[in-house]
Amino acid sequence: MAEKKGTMIIQMSGDFDKVFAGFTLASASAAAGMPTTIFYTFWGLKAIQKGNLTGKGIMGRMIGLLNRGGLQRLGPSKFNFGGIGRWMFKKMMAAKNVAGLEELRQACIDLGVKFYACKMSMDVMEIRREDLIDEVADVVGAATAMKDANAASVQYFI
Amino acid sequence: MAEKKGTMIIQMSGDFDKVFAGFTLASASAAAGMPTTIFYTFWGLKAIQKGNLTGKGIMGRMIGLLNRGGLQRLGPSKFNFGGIGRWMFKKMMAAKNVAGLEELRQACIDLGVKFYACKMSMDVMEIRREDLIDEVADVVGAATAMKDANAASVQYFI
Amino acid sequence: MAEKKGTMIIQMSGDFDKVFAGFTLASASAAAGMPTTIFYTFWGLKAIQKGNLTGKGIMGRMIGLLNRGGLQRLGPSKFNFGGIGRWMFKKMMAAKNVAGLEELRQACIDLGVKFYACKMSMDVMEIRREDLIDEVADVVGAATAMKDANAASVQYFI
Repeated sequence: MAEKKGTMIIQMSGDFDKVFAGFTLASASAAAGMPTTIFYTFWGLKAIQKGNLTGKGIMGRMIGLLNRGGLQRLGPSKFNFGGIGRWMFKKMMAAKNVAGLEELRQACIDLGVKFYACKMSMDVMEIRREDLIDEVADVVGAATAMKDANAASVQYFI
Repeated sequence: MAEKKGTMIIQMSGDFDKVFAGFTLASASAAAGMPTTIFYTFWGLKAIQKGNLTGKGIMGRMIGLLNRGGLQRLGPSKFNFGGIGRWMFKKMMAAKNVAGLEELRQACIDLGVKFYACKMSMDVMEIRREDLIDEVADVVGAATAMKDANAASVQYFI
Repeated sequence: MAEKKGTMIIQMSGDFDKVFAGFTLASASAAAGMPTTIFYTFWGLKAIQKGNLTGKGIMGRMIGLLNRGGLQRLGPSKFNFGGIGRWMFKKMMAAKNVAGLEELRQACIDLGVKFYACKMSMDVMEIRREDLIDEVADVVGAATAMKDANAASVQYFI
């Protein structure tokens, strides 16, 4: 059996529920003593952005506008339950004492989960290193992500 | 080579096609003699719900209403082919003698696939153990899911 | 550590960004010397279709119509940035000198990535072998996919 060889999650979705899933699995993995990495790419980058406006060109600014707000602004992947989506989800989670996204992200950080940001996605979407939270360990390419995945015993693409 | 060490699928999507994919991969895995587990979380729980109304609070009831019907009511993840979605899909599958979701789920059960339900999702969505089909082996947390994933040679997040 | 045991990607999504992710991870994996396979199923098949109309029956033809155009016609999974989606994405990628889907697919082929097509999906959607690009190595079932996954050190479901 592969003992505590580590977890490598590729987080491509920036939907509330899927970012939640990524943080939850990563923190559970790290809490079990497994070296754990999340590689954020495309829409997933929202989970580790500060929430400020980004982009220099017209299109980069447009994406920045759509991505603004960071963790607080993520909506769920399913059709918002007819529009009440994020608000309802948060309320139900709070009512059940489930940690919110900010808390979960902090738990990941405290437990030593390593955050990687995808270089190519950042280039395309015009996101700079300083637009990401300080806790991001590095900005890397897909080759590094695959190398880490190969060394890990658990891999998920979310 | 990792020989028959098992498969661990995290099923978060409740879309028809993705539930179908989960059952298909799990049954293929179990048929090959690999210990196989599906961990159902969030929308994926629909795949192992009886289909009755759930929830006590207002919001729990609302989710219950949206989730009602169980396997029979799942729609595909792509835009329903302009509205004909589920009906067409089922008809085409039947025309090609492809097993339906109920049959596939039963095949998984018969082949010994273990169904886990996510405790936290059930709490948030107000789904009780008795709302799930009897064949669900256990209601567990993410820590258990990650432990099983670490012991498995194949992991998928669907 | 599992050294270069290979990568097995199940590509179910036919969205531009997710097909892009599949090709990128596969090419990075193959470039690192790992035997790499992509198993295309359901909507993912679009990534290896020639783009011609398919299907004999009414419903098969309808799906064929929706799937027409192959790689050139894929839209992103998120709401098209308010309608500009594919066009903007391609333009931004070109501006940053990021390879397009056709280039990426060719890179995968040149690096020896093995393309498998899902037999059952092809049956249901009425796609024939001759509707797929010549470079597809084989048309196989889920059992073969799971066997390959079990032998691989990295597995992703995209």
